[in-house]
Amino acid sequence: MSEATSRTRVRRIPDRGHYDAATIHSVLDAALLCHVGFTVDEQPYVIPTLFARDGEHVVFHGSAASRMLRHAATSVPVCLEVAIVDAIVLARSVFNHSMNYRSVLVLGAAEIVTDDEEKLRALELISEHVLPGRWADVRPPSAKELKATSVLRLSLKEASAKIRTGPPLDEDEDYALPIWAGVLPVAATRGQAVPDPRMTQEFPGIPLPAYLKPR
Amino acid sequence: MSEATSRTRVRRIPDRGHYDAATIHSVLDAALLCHVGFTVDEQPYVIPTLFARDGEHVVFHGSAASRMLRHAATSVPVCLEVAIVDAIVLARSVFNHSMNYRSVLVLGAAEIVTDDEEKLRALELISEHVLPGRWADVRPPSAKELKATSVLRLSLKEASAKIRTGPPLDEDEDYALPIWAGVLPVAATRGQAVPDPRMTQEFPGIPLPAYLKPR
Repeated sequence: MSEATSRTRVRRIPDRGHYDAATIHSVLDAALLCHVGFTVDEQPYVIPTLFARDGEHVVFHGSAASRMLRHAATSVPVCLEVAIVDAIVLARSVFNHSMNYRSVLVLGAAEIVTDDEEKLRALELISEHVLPGRWADVRPPSAKELKATSVLRLSLKEASAKIRTGPPLDEDEDYALPIWAGVLPVAATRGQAVPDPRMTQEFPGIPLPAYLKPR
Repeated sequence: MSEATSRTRVRRIPDRGHYDAATIHSVLDAALLCHVGFTVDEQPYVIPTLFARDGEHVVFHGSAASRMLRHAATSVPVCLEVAIVDAIVLARSVFNHSMNYRSVLVLGAAEIVTDDEEKLRALELISEHVLPGRWADVRPPSAKELKATSVLRLSLKEASAKIRTGPPLDEDEDYALPIWAGVLPVAATRGQAVPDPRMTQEFPGIPLPAYLKPR
């Protein structure tokens, strides 16, 4: 369960802030990528990476953040952010233009997962988060590959969600302006799977897995 | 023109690193959101926000980062990141699964734009970045609204792009496995515009602007 702290409370437009676990989980579960912020020598870095939720924690790929890991023995202060844009909100004034979106910030100290079984479980969660059904079809990591993969784990204890939905909200007097107003939906969509030419050549009979069929 | 520094050089898979302005510009210009990292009291934060490229700079909305601005007089160290996912890359092994993506990191000190004309120009660039054509149709910001809007400006001098394209790359021996391999394209698509009910009621005759028509 998350709680609003002085660091996660949504201040600018408080109505958009949510601190309940169900809301935070649903936004995390719907996002493909997360963006992990950390600081090295007073310089902030933000790295996009794959992740998954594991109950009241998130686990994420640490390879891209190797820079950060070199500077931290077992844990490091991070901010993990996800943002899903649902629509561009077109108001009658420039000032009231906005986005419909769902975002989450998680603050805390990310810990390196060292136990092999835990690491394997985290990789399965990340794989199933990206593409449910894929994990069972592919060659699992070897001991060497597992060793070469960094996984980090971060508690959801200090987290907040921000959500905007609905039509534009204009200044009262602006509703008299004859300007088209409304929302333009935006969504991440999956296309038709493109087979690897080497597979088509060597195994022309392999059918497209069900989890890759257009929905 | 950007240059690779010890802080921006892509280390983990160097072939994916790009430091030329044309590549960096094209990735920035194709992204809808950016993710801005900054540090307050040793805690990193990452905020999703709208932005635009202005030649060899990026300008971005600073309101969401008000937390950061309260702590910095005129400039603040940030990392601005954009990431566009083009496909999920399905290899024969878990380990070689990947994403086709285009990402950019920009490091530097973001400066607050104080001049009203510069601020207005930045807002126009941001608006045209999100939805070209919209700016000319709507009520421009009042002096009061302009004052209430924070805009930050960051040089592209220290920036790098990372790009992956193409089919999965598996271990030699894994090509003998009869596993479906290839890429699953992912794209952000725009749907059909939804009019604000208050506009439909008060101005039923306003046509859908050309820039909102499905492409």
